[in-house]
Amino acid sequence: MHAMHGLKFLLVCILFLAAAISASAQTAAKSLVEKLGHSPDAKLLIVHADDLGEAHSVNAASIKALESGAVNSASIMVPCPWFPEIADYAKSHPEVDFGLHLTLTSERIYYRWGPVASADKVRSLLDENGYLHHDWTPTTHIDPHEAELELRAQIDRAYAMGVRPTHLDSHQYRLDSTGKELFEVALRLAHQYKLPFFVTHDWFADYPYLASALGPNDVVIDHTITIEPNVPPEKWPDFYKNALRNLQPGVTELVIHLAYDDTEMRAATRERETWGAAWRQRDFDFFTSPEFRQLLHEQNIKLITWREIADRSEHN
Amino acid sequence: MHAMHGLKFLLVCILFLAAAISASAQTAAKSLVEKLGHSPDAKLLIVHADDLGEAHSVNAASIKALESGAVNSASIMVPCPWFPEIADYAKSHPEVDFGLHLTLTSERIYYRWGPVASADKVRSLLDENGYLHHDWTPTTHIDPHEAELELRAQIDRAYAMGVRPTHLDSHQYRLDSTGKELFEVALRLAHQYKLPFFVTHDWFADYPYLASALGPNDVVIDHTITIEPNVPPEKWPDFYKNALRNLQPGVTELVIHLAYDDTEMRAATRERETWGAAWRQRDFDFFTSPEFRQLLHEQNIKLITWREIADRSEHN
Repeated sequence: MHAMHGLKFLLVCILFLAAAISASAQTAAKSLVEKLGHSPDAKLLIVHADDLGEAHSVNAASIKALESGAVNSASIMVPCPWFPEIADYAKSHPEVDFGLHLTLTSERIYYRWGPVASADKVRSLLDENGYLHHDWTPTTHIDPHEAELELRAQIDRAYAMGVRPTHLDSHQYRLDSTGKELFEVALRLAHQYKLPFFVTHDWFADYPYLASALGPNDVVIDHTITIEPNVPPEKWPDFYKNALRNLQPGVTELVIHLAYDDTEMRAATRERETWGAAWRQRDFDFFTSPEFRQLLHEQNIKLITWREIADRSEHN
Repeated sequence: MHAMHGLKFLLVCILFLAAAISASAQTAAKSLVEKLGHSPDAKLLIVHADDLGEAHSVNAASIKALESGAVNSASIMVPCPWFPEIADYAKSHPEVDFGLHLTLTSERIYYRWGPVASADKVRSLLDENGYLHHDWTPTTHIDPHEAELELRAQIDRAYAMGVRPTHLDSHQYRLDSTGKELFEVALRLAHQYKLPFFVTHDWFADYPYLASALGPNDVVIDHTITIEPNVPPEKWPDFYKNALRNLQPGVTELVIHLAYDDTEMRAATRERETWGAAWRQRDFDFFTSPEFRQLLHEQNIKLITWREIADRSEHN
């Protein structure tokens, strides 16, 4: 009997230990939505406009969408000519969820920008005419130290001009998709300025260095959705409706690009249709439509900002 | 009688000498219009659009005016974001009379540009955020060596991107009106690149250092006309009609500023009306009107370009 009691006690101990381990594992594995105070099956969405500062048309359409509540987060390109306009807006609207869209390329042809840092310190980032590279090819060598210097200059100019960013992300995903060294630059800047840098689990399979570079305190959101050039213009609303109806639990960033299909934007993007004026007008039209609001409601999708993610995730 | 003959001979000699001196003086003082092959009372006019490259709206309106024959010369701002668009046009239209509008200021608030040279080599030209100064105040110290470095970088970028300028001039007349040192920078660049730099006798009284800095081979045109903020919008056509009816003999540059009164231009210039979107639309409207063409004809005013001035004046 003593032996039985001893066995029972051992079993109880094992069960207790197992429960404790399980609880501990659950704490460790607490998902981002849970850290944010939601149930694990909650669908949280950041509706995020990219490329602010790039052109007046982008600024005007993005501000309109932010003010109408269609979009709840956005990020700003500091080297672009219209940065002062959006910086002025950000300064006078400190409640808006603005991040910095770290920029190492000047991807258009007729309308271009150079670096914020001194050109002779960031030569590997520049083309033969002194603009940020139009594109990176396999022969383009980007010096990570120069990238870091340039991006620090971008962040510093933003602060100096009154922007108080809530997050960082990367124009054309260059810092996520080009290799571990540039991703580590992004993480170093994120840590230094105490800002989350946009990374999602969706990218881990394609870019294994992301997971290995991230530390336990780095925010990683669950999913991202963005429309691609293979969607024909007439299928634009269908793509987004489908994406929202199939939204997975967790935190998702929906990356969109807003502008008006106007003279300035047409001229700036006329060499190709991708991410051009008409593309951005289609994004604007869908996200400012009542249909979009209705779908969020129907699908029980809650909006969340980077500010909330940064504030709450660090205290849990 | 011998004495009379002697006196007559002396008089003839004196008359001959006086005629020779007069002819020599006339050669030395041969006016620019005469050097250009016209009679001294000819009225030659450069209809010159400034600020190309500054915005798409400026480029579009200026190209339209150049192609319709309303305007026959223009100059380009290299540091501006839309420089690549106008450089591409200049490259594919080598017959057009394009100069470089040497730029040391970024005079707007919501839409700005930085230097072409490496920022840390031209610090005196930059404000605390790294843009070219919004304005120069009595406490702004512009280092002439840095100005020269920056302007050489502008000219070199223009050549590198396919522009073959016919002349140089100065945005906001900064190089003419700020003192001898900056004017000498302009002249050194003009000599080095073998291009005329826009100077007119009209400025000599206000800026005496101009005349003393100029050499005998520098082109100086006779007059310049530009509209000023004290002209009310409704008097715009009257100002120009009056100016053309009272045009003096010689070479005159009529300095105008073209753009459309559109969304981009309104946003870029919204902090003040001077040289703003509506101002530039009024210039566009007058100079593309049949009235302007008619007045040129009525007043027997001939158009001339900087290319013709540069080509012909150096061979006379």
